[in-house]
Amino acid sequence: MHDDRDGRVFDWLDAAAESRRRAGLVRELRPRAADAAPLDLAGNDYLGLCRHPEVIAAAAAAAAEWGAGATGSRLVTGSTALHARLEAELAAFCGFEAALVLASGYAANLAVLTALGGRGALIVSDAANHASLIDGCRLSRADVAVVPHADPDAFAKALDDHPGRALAVTDAVFSVDGDAAPLTALAAACRAHGAALVVDDAHGLGVLGEGGRGAVAAAGLAGAPDVVATVTLSKSLGSQGGAVLGPARVIAHLVNTARTLIFDTGLAPPAAGAALGALRLLRREPARAGRVRAVAAELHRRLAAAGLPATRPDAAVVSVRAPSPEAAVRWAADCRAAGIAVGCFRPPSVPDGVSRLRLTARADLTDDQLDRAVSEIIRTAPAAGGSGR
Amino acid sequence: MHDDRDGRVFDWLDAAAESRRRAGLVRELRPRAADAAPLDLAGNDYLGLCRHPEVIAAAAAAAAEWGAGATGSRLVTGSTALHARLEAELAAFCGFEAALVLASGYAANLAVLTALGGRGALIVSDAANHASLIDGCRLSRADVAVVPHADPDAFAKALDDHPGRALAVTDAVFSVDGDAAPLTALAAACRAHGAALVVDDAHGLGVLGEGGRGAVAAAGLAGAPDVVATVTLSKSLGSQGGAVLGPARVIAHLVNTARTLIFDTGLAPPAAGAALGALRLLRREPARAGRVRAVAAELHRRLAAAGLPATRPDAAVVSVRAPSPEAAVRWAADCRAAGIAVGCFRPPSVPDGVSRLRLTARADLTDDQLDRAVSEIIRTAPAAGGSGR
Repeated sequence: MHDDRDGRVFDWLDAAAESRRRAGLVRELRPRAADAAPLDLAGNDYLGLCRHPEVIAAAAAAAAEWGAGATGSRLVTGSTALHARLEAELAAFCGFEAALVLASGYAANLAVLTALGGRGALIVSDAANHASLIDGCRLSRADVAVVPHADPDAFAKALDDHPGRALAVTDAVFSVDGDAAPLTALAAACRAHGAALVVDDAHGLGVLGEGGRGAVAAAGLAGAPDVVATVTLSKSLGSQGGAVLGPARVIAHLVNTARTLIFDTGLAPPAAGAALGALRLLRREPARAGRVRAVAAELHRRLAAAGLPATRPDAAVVSVRAPSPEAAVRWAADCRAAGIAVGCFRPPSVPDGVSRLRLTARADLTDDQLDRAVSEIIRTAPAAGGSGR
Repeated sequence: MHDDRDGRVFDWLDAAAESRRRAGLVRELRPRAADAAPLDLAGNDYLGLCRHPEVIAAAAAAAAEWGAGATGSRLVTGSTALHARLEAELAAFCGFEAALVLASGYAANLAVLTALGGRGALIVSDAANHASLIDGCRLSRADVAVVPHADPDAFAKALDDHPGRALAVTDAVFSVDGDAAPLTALAAACRAHGAALVVDDAHGLGVLGEGGRGAVAAAGLAGAPDVVATVTLSKSLGSQGGAVLGPARVIAHLVNTARTLIFDTGLAPPAAGAALGALRLLRREPARAGRVRAVAAELHRRLAAAGLPATRPDAAVVSVRAPSPEAAVRWAADCRAAGIAVGCFRPPSVPDGVSRLRLTARADLTDDQLDRAVSEIIRTAPAAGGSGR
């Protein structure tokens, strides 16, 4: 049935694989086992809720009550009373008028930027924004101006003289280096220009703001008529999915126009149930948010004291630069061999091309675990690790 | 803190809402209750597995063993042995060398088209393809040629004279009208041109092919070195998520380059567990696939016999044209009032601008339920329903 030519259709992939190998940039999936879990400083389960008995029970209860899947798009059969409850409680917690839950944070960002962008609109985007915001800009058909990282003046300049609709978009906490965006100044720049502000608070929810209400709430921008936020349910809330938070008319517009809402299956009930369970836990135990910030600060303090080029964390993420992609891979592997899971970010996942370890704090990390993690990370550091190059 | 101007940033949305209202195209979420479930001919739970006790138990067991979320990207902490098992069994069942599970079918389609497309490549795309394929084309940066629906000669013509890499992409079963793509002829056209064939088998898996192995397997194309398929875990498998199936080197390329894999949280373990549970059930009870096709054929036969403009189903979807968007909305509402949930597709979700009811067969629909559904759909049909306009 097939001739030789059919087999050659994908030969170009071998050359691509070979150049990745030469550059030290091969990625492989490394499935983890359920039992031999290493000490995790790599995941985004910031509050340690992913395996919390209440959250697990909420997932199981939702599966039993609603089924394992949503069965269709949110607009057809995929909206349950559980989704509506999660949206109401999420909006209330974060201080917004309304919320819309989607199947992933990626889908939420695509939804906002495609629905609020469009031809003739201008989107001003921070150069270090997450890939899902970049892809949302590309899909939006809007004019896109990429401006230097965390620079409100650059946002203001890009917004100058645009005659039509404009929006500015930024991560609240940047996922690679863990630094926070200057939200207050960005909001002021937007307001001076009549532009909307869209903030991806994926790494702020559960970590920043009073009781973990997020970076947008911490900046006093939650519920503002010109501000839209997105969050994930897969980080602090230990589940899966994403949500858009904003004025009710923005949410209604997304329901009517956002392709990743209209043309995707609704979030599975077990994920919606788990996220709601985690949200209720966080409301009841607001100190978890402060604890994860304290763990991150302590992690940074000790690594920096040992001479490692660690970034000062604004939230839960601490990044440490490595001399090369190969050194980063080796460092991460040495940590893993010592029972510590750390993230290893290399091009093209890093905006500046510099490889680093990405460490995440968790609220449920004990002092002993932190001691052990810090000493192994320092012990396995590459010789040139202190240089930051 | 806010002045009047801030409140006017989103005023343009009110005008957009008003023109939707005037066109009869307002969409609203209508959360369903857990108890008063109507007879469902709207969802994509084709095999009736979403609420199957084994599938629910698999979701709960996965939550208990692995937690409610994957905690990170597949490349960081989000790959578990459960994901690997699901990938291996899915690839084996569908007849492919390898599989890669993503958080949604939407993400799977974006992954394939962005990773295999790219600047200089040509993607030839069926005019009736699903929105996620269209968005994948847009994001791919490839040249895109949209060709008339289900027309292999048009694909061949578009592939003529393209000097570089090319791929053709099609739904296996089109989601609105339920018709099947001419896969054999499309594969021949691709092979004559050295192009890859990408098939979205979302509505074929579980329904078409021996024991529900899908339309690609039914066409003898599974495992071919030049064919890639995508499937969803949220339709026949009753869960959430998507997967790419293909040669191992294609899957390795996606792991290294696909943005929706690298920059999104891995599929939640309860969803992976539920999908695996459903897959095992389908392997054990292959007759479910034949049953859903028989139900769809009977549904079509009876509606057509009553003079309604129903499409002959190639899989589980039967669509019935309505005279106008308003008539379609009223028809669907009348069905719902009678306890029958049906899909109502209106612009812009329909490629030709014609509104219709979209009915889906389920393997677990009893003859009595089918009788009741058919008689209510006929009873509530709009007067002009027979005209197809």
